Amino acid sequence: MPRSNASSANAETMARQQREISVSEFFLKNRHLLGFDNPRKALLTTVKEAVDNSLDACEEAGLLPELSVEITQTGEKRFRVTVMDNGPGVVRAQVPRIFAKLLYGSKFHRLRMSRGQQGIGISAAGMYGQLTTGTATRILSKVPRGKLAHHIEVQIDTRKNTPTILKDAELEWAPSFPGIGGEGVPAEPRVYSHGTSVAIEMEAHYVRGRLSVDEYLRQCLVANPHLQLHYRVNLLDKEIDNEGQATTPLVEGQWVSWKRTAEALPKPPVEIKPHPHGVELGMMMQMLRDTESRTLRGVLSEDFSRVSSQTALDICTRAGLDAKANPRRIASREVETLYKAVNETKLMRPPTDCLSCIGEPLIVAGLSKEIDAEFCTAVTRDPTVYRGNPFQVEVGIAYARPGGGGGETAADEPVRVMRFANRVPLLYMAGACAVTKAICGVNWKNYGLAQPRGSLPLGPMVVMVHIASVWVPFTSESKEAIAHYPEMIREIGFAVQECGRRLSVHLHRRHREAEAERKRSYIEKYIPHLALGLKDVLNLTDRDEGRVVDHLRRMLERTHLEV
Amino acid sequence: MPRSNASSANAETMARQQREISVSEFFLKNRHLLGFDNPRKALLTTVKEAVDNSLDACEEAGLLPELSVEITQTGEKRFRVTVMDNGPGVVRAQVPRIFAKLLYGSKFHRLRMSRGQQGIGISAAGMYGQLTTGTATRILSKVPRGKLAHHIEVQIDTRKNTPTILKDAELEWAPSFPGIGGEGVPAEPRVYSHGTSVAIEMEAHYVRGRLSVDEYLRQCLVANPHLQLHYRVNLLDKEIDNEGQATTPLVEGQWVSWKRTAEALPKPPVEIKPHPHGVELGMMMQMLRDTESRTLRGVLSEDFSRVSSQTALDICTRAGLDAKANPRRIASREVETLYKAVNETKLMRPPTDCLSCIGEPLIVAGLSKEIDAEFCTAVTRDPTVYRGNPFQVEVGIAYARPGGGGGETAADEPVRVMRFANRVPLLYMAGACAVTKAICGVNWKNYGLAQPRGSLPLGPMVVMVHIASVWVPFTSESKEAIAHYPEMIREIGFAVQECGRRLSVHLHRRHREAEAERKRSYIEKYIPHLALGLKDVLNLTDRDEGRVVDHLRRMLERTHLEV
Repeated sequence: MPRSNASSANAETMARQQREISVSEFFLKNRHLLGFDNPRKALLTTVKEAVDNSLDACEEAGLLPELSVEITQTGEKRFRVTVMDNGPGVVRAQVPRIFAKLLYGSKFHRLRMSRGQQGIGISAAGMYGQLTTGTATRILSKVPRGKLAHHIEVQIDTRKNTPTILKDAELEWAPSFPGIGGEGVPAEPRVYSHGTSVAIEMEAHYVRGRLSVDEYLRQCLVANPHLQLHYRVNLLDKEIDNEGQATTPLVEGQWVSWKRTAEALPKPPVEIKPHPHGVELGMMMQMLRDTESRTLRGVLSEDFSRVSSQTALDICTRAGLDAKANPRRIASREVETLYKAVNETKLMRPPTDCLSCIGEPLIVAGLSKEIDAEFCTAVTRDPTVYRGNPFQVEVGIAYARPGGGGGETAADEPVRVMRFANRVPLLYMAGACAVTKAICGVNWKNYGLAQPRGSLPLGPMVVMVHIASVWVPFTSESKEAIAHYPEMIREIGFAVQECGRRLSVHLHRRHREAEAERKRSYIEKYIPHLALGLKDVLNLTDRDEGRVVDHLRRMLERTHLEV
Repeated sequence: MPRSNASSANAETMARQQREISVSEFFLKNRHLLGFDNPRKALLTTVKEAVDNSLDACEEAGLLPELSVEITQTGEKRFRVTVMDNGPGVVRAQVPRIFAKLLYGSKFHRLRMSRGQQGIGISAAGMYGQLTTGTATRILSKVPRGKLAHHIEVQIDTRKNTPTILKDAELEWAPSFPGIGGEGVPAEPRVYSHGTSVAIEMEAHYVRGRLSVDEYLRQCLVANPHLQLHYRVNLLDKEIDNEGQATTPLVEGQWVSWKRTAEALPKPPVEIKPHPHGVELGMMMQMLRDTESRTLRGVLSEDFSRVSSQTALDICTRAGLDAKANPRRIASREVETLYKAVNETKLMRPPTDCLSCIGEPLIVAGLSKEIDAEFCTAVTRDPTVYRGNPFQVEVGIAYARPGGGGGETAADEPVRVMRFANRVPLLYMAGACAVTKAICGVNWKNYGLAQPRGSLPLGPMVVMVHIASVWVPFTSESKEAIAHYPEMIREIGFAVQECGRRLSVHLHRRHREAEAERKRSYIEKYIPHLALGLKDVLNLTDRDEGRVVDHLRRMLERTHLEV
């Protein structure tokens, strides 16, 4: 029997406690979901979100991107991240919402490949800064046509998920980047008439190494050869901070610059419409309700990809529905029949010009910069489709020269894996990523590498995997790992195997050459003794002996070629 | 130099594409984040969210929970999930938002242990049903005082994240549960005057086994011994569906019922205020702005836990701030000084009556039902604190009787791990969970179990871990695994080690006993021969021989006791 005690709640008291949770409050409390679980990762995530946004904006505007990233220590555990670009700028009215409102942006509602997807990242970084230091996000932005730039400072009102503007001013400003001097060319700063700079101060921790900002930017350059980048870290000098209250002056770091290696922008990805076979029932209902078309045939052929007007008619006939019917009426009544007919109709696969791959030559070029490789190869697979979403896989491998600058790879250690999604390096959560799973799933012994069971192969090698898609299925909002979708794992596996086969040919040839070389030097050692023996037996002159040695050497060389 | 082409966007065209993304749209597109990545998991997640809500509501109202869970197949890949409880009901005005609006609820804004945290789960399940089948969520609910129940059907308008009400009626209804007959007691249905039933139809896949609804409910009973549960699965009969268009009648399953084993509700957890040491700078600013107190001293002592009025004064003095200052003014100016002073002040740890543990006796009882154990023990650690959030760890282990109904455990297989957070079983993502990491990190060889390096130990054993907290840090919204916080991993490790030590004593004793038994039976075998020898040597009678045997046996038994 139900018990009840005085202090217990009932339906009415519970009802009074029910209220809306703003998406900002939600992510503030669950900020580890966005990549802000610790100060070290927060720094990386902030740089990543700002750089992603800048690259997306530049490419969308058809501008070759030039970026500067500056990390400045402002306290023992405080840093300011400043990222500046030569992009198209942001119009003033949009600045507050873009930088201080979660779930706001242009990329979520369209099917087009881009780095950002959700309209969360940069605002979340600002929110983290605000939470940990109480400061505001500072934005400078100038559009090409404008005379002045605007300087805006915003915070998020987390209760409402709306921006609070703390400063809104106009000023003279043009993005200026450190010059990169060539041979004999002085380094002059480069100035643009447009761009955006965003600065966020936060509790953070700066480290070097595998999961660092340094590594992130290096990998960024591999996947974005058209990027020109400047990077500087300014740290507080702790050396002289021995006497208790002594000041710790800021030591300005040197700008490190990387010239772009590709002078052309990647092929701009095209926005596509949803493919009927990737649309679920409820989504189809929504599309029928939202359409601007007045007929069923119209909505099918205009709002979906790969449905011609004739195909639309076929679908209507198959479903037994009037092609001129009002889509809204269909949505509420016969949508299941329509859905079934659509899925029974054979359609072309979705168009794949919505994807923009790096391409084999640029992958090889990028990897060659990362590692002193004796062998380097890349495979770009044809695009394929998952749940109506096109995606494309690219894989590159680079095998280090023995004794060369393999850097962080060694023969008896697992190969180094570099993961990218839509040209964005993924550093954390490697163990949970479909890429790691696919590489571990390949039998590397076939290709001449040792491999503990179910693990990464061992060897002085870098494996790079890039996945391009209009919708990358990440395992969390922080976009650190790709979910284990079988279609993706299979595609990655195919590309890795192809690279593996090429590697195997190379390693085999190298092995054969080494073997021949060993035999040759072995035989060569005996030639003088053989000649001496012949000289004794045949009573040859010294000159004959020399000729015999020469002759045998030539024979050996000829043979060597035919080994 | 900047390039620009005709088709490229500029700041103005980009601005026109910027728009708000509703949280429903976001999670609809990223529904794998909420546990709806595939039909099988979707079924489990839906049951889980509904059961969690029911249990929370019953406990909060001080009612011993009785629930029924029914899964009914409605099509080849379609199922309807119906979960009914005897809880306090939901007032009519709240039904639409609770069941068809993401981020709405009573549990997010308070610091109190509960199963639900986010106000997402059940609405997300409804949204998934709507997406895959176009149907609505059906709710029946009756509050104790009301005369009639209300029957409401809702969908989510995902563009706005608001409920759309499709049906709103009143009817006679009282939750009725199948009876559980005792010995000689007929099974009569039990009827309550209040409760809630929620039904969602969706694309799903029903399976049995490790990651199934069946397993989830079984584990639920282990962690919630006060729960009385009824479960039924109704499947379409495929056997008779041979002749093409033949109908597939529904085969109603049998109700399976589990009587509650604890007649008392768990100690109700108390809501606490935030602990000052767990509050970040930005959060403190927000609290100073939102407070109803008029003075700094007031806000410190009233809005935080563990700050007495005297301590509040000390903090003000330490910070050099006026105790009577307006908190809003402090928020915008001197908050950093205050924050520093607060963190330099020694404070009591947060209160821990906000946690409600299962307790050692009930854990042992629960595990004993799961496995025919020859040894079973449990450890409930004292509550501890992480970032100002109290949490508590409980661990139980059960070692199967040899040849007993160990069920799914075997001597040469990894032990079975059951993970719980706030009494909710976690089934997926075991590899990513802090619990798994903690168990693998213990050296089980010390306790007599084999253990491959860095892996789970091997043995016919179940390890159960329960973490109770006002805020469990899950790795994703789907609440499947606990993030790797070092404090949690350490606490779990301590509890596991204590259980391991007890197991080790048991295994050691068992080993010793088995050894003694072996020796004893060995010696016993020779007693008759010894007696016969003595008889020959000493010329004893048969009766003497019998007495010698008896005597030797008794000696052996005495010795055995002293082994």
